[in-house]
Amino acid sequence: MRDEQLITLAHGAGGKASSALIQSVFVSAFGPHQDKSLQDAAVIDVQQHFGAGSRIAMTTDSYVVSPLFFPGGDIGTLAVCGTVNDLAVCGARPLCLSAAFILEEGLPIRELQRVVASMADTARRANVSIVTGDTKVVAKGQVDKVFITTTGLGVVPPGVQVRSDQAEAGDAVLVNGPIGDHGAAIMLARGDLGLSADVRSDCAALNPMIGDILSAVPACRVMRDATRGGVGAVLSEIAQASNVAIALDENALPVRLETQGICELLGLDPLFFANEGLVVVLVPQAQAEAVLSVMKNHPEGQSARQIGQVVEQGQPLLYINTSFGTKRMIELPYGIQLPRIC
Amino acid sequence: MRDEQLITLAHGAGGKASSALIQSVFVSAFGPHQDKSLQDAAVIDVQQHFGAGSRIAMTTDSYVVSPLFFPGGDIGTLAVCGTVNDLAVCGARPLCLSAAFILEEGLPIRELQRVVASMADTARRANVSIVTGDTKVVAKGQVDKVFITTTGLGVVPPGVQVRSDQAEAGDAVLVNGPIGDHGAAIMLARGDLGLSADVRSDCAALNPMIGDILSAVPACRVMRDATRGGVGAVLSEIAQASNVAIALDENALPVRLETQGICELLGLDPLFFANEGLVVVLVPQAQAEAVLSVMKNHPEGQSARQIGQVVEQGQPLLYINTSFGTKRMIELPYGIQLPRIC
Repeated sequence: MRDEQLITLAHGAGGKASSALIQSVFVSAFGPHQDKSLQDAAVIDVQQHFGAGSRIAMTTDSYVVSPLFFPGGDIGTLAVCGTVNDLAVCGARPLCLSAAFILEEGLPIRELQRVVASMADTARRANVSIVTGDTKVVAKGQVDKVFITTTGLGVVPPGVQVRSDQAEAGDAVLVNGPIGDHGAAIMLARGDLGLSADVRSDCAALNPMIGDILSAVPACRVMRDATRGGVGAVLSEIAQASNVAIALDENALPVRLETQGICELLGLDPLFFANEGLVVVLVPQAQAEAVLSVMKNHPEGQSARQIGQVVEQGQPLLYINTSFGTKRMIELPYGIQLPRIC
Repeated sequence: MRDEQLITLAHGAGGKASSALIQSVFVSAFGPHQDKSLQDAAVIDVQQHFGAGSRIAMTTDSYVVSPLFFPGGDIGTLAVCGTVNDLAVCGARPLCLSAAFILEEGLPIRELQRVVASMADTARRANVSIVTGDTKVVAKGQVDKVFITTTGLGVVPPGVQVRSDQAEAGDAVLVNGPIGDHGAAIMLARGDLGLSADVRSDCAALNPMIGDILSAVPACRVMRDATRGGVGAVLSEIAQASNVAIALDENALPVRLETQGICELLGLDPLFFANEGLVVVLVPQAQAEAVLSVMKNHPEGQSARQIGQVVEQGQPLLYINTSFGTKRMIELPYGIQLPRIC
């Protein structure tokens, strides 16, 4: 990355430009923990303080979604779900959250109260406490309404090891529901398209479902929540981290008709649309059915299914077996389809 | 707080308006942990996970200081020091930090690298790791350059209890250095005043000094870092939380000549100027000398001194015994002297 470069929207989009920024600016200064392509939360060994096997997971995300309110949720539900899910996919039981608010002068307090009520309600349902916080106010025009940063803390039970670099040939690739709904809902909610369709964000706290999956099938190798960058970005990162080829089955990809319609109209790929209640699980094929049946016991897992398989080791690749019988390579885009999605 | 109200700069200023917002919007929704007037970090009991006496401290702050770079530090040093200090004053040993960046499209990457290098350097000197992070980019005009939210995690050793509601009559009120320098440095750095003077922010990580104080004098009752709102706001909160009267000695207040000059010119009170490397310690009078001598062993404690005493219990009061022999009551201001100080 050249020094004279300027930050662009692509740097925040979860594609190649984001990875390049993270590697060249953050990982080089702070160390390898910063690389979210390996895991959604840092797992910190605290055995010197609390005894053998004690591990804590920590994750942080800023939420800058626009608009603040959208079908299926708002910035508050997002700020709790996103952070709780990042802990859960690392095998951690969420313990507590912090919430830092940056508010624009002139924001109606009623809107803030609505956001805060969503956060409290979502936290209650995810069984996690918001234990500390911060509030800053900046002058009108120096921030867009409300930005929220939540940080989550979780406890990783002894023996649990879920990491992006553990995929192996023969693993099944599973998802718990339709892909791309969050991205499509935000795109519609902005109103720029002049379209209307009944698409709601899939925003949901997945820790109860993920906890059940890990109890039933401790052999799960990889779990990632497919937020910014979508299922495509997450699988591409897993392929890189584990040095494997992943083949998806086009016919098996669950995409709602409305989301598919928006994608076709705009020439975009739902594989790279953001989700906020979608987990990608890689597990030995023999255990795939067991995971799917646990998913289907939860409201967020009603449409759970296998979408592909890890086919080879030794070269990072991601492709789709299309309905025409051809193979289409999937490349992580440089930037993103839409900024401020989360 | 009435629903039709709008957020004002006063709500983010650390005075009465901030307290009102926190109480009416956040504490009511998330529970009492949110109230930073009681402690700078939440202390979380984790003994069900890690055994008897296990406690973790967690704190978060967003940094929105303008300008990004100022004499004595920058937004990066601030983001590490502020969070490390919030942990330390709760008696916690800082363990690790997360860092979430919200960047404005068009920000020169060189400036980001400068900020990140300051963070890495400050973290190294404070002996704390930055273990996870996040980067969001928003369109030009939707944020002012860079906002950083850091969250800190610390371990509270068994038996350590430092809280704002433990002050008792007879306690000495100590500080480790001159007050108001951070606020004065930011005010000058903005250049709006057309003044120049040699004032540097006191920005420093105090965890080594505070660790030594707690080892030497475990009887310390209250510790607070006097950031936004200054020494005045912190003492006023301690008086409220402990229900005591605190008397300060005007002649004992350490204020640099340059900071005093800026205050007099603007009609402002250095007691309410922000600090970023200043801790207020309340300790039984008999142990005051022991604490001061530990402070003086550290570069940040060279000008350590006693500035007052807790004089009565039963009514929350804060006043100054002036050099004219009169008493001046100190009221927490409604708003603040300056926004975006930290």
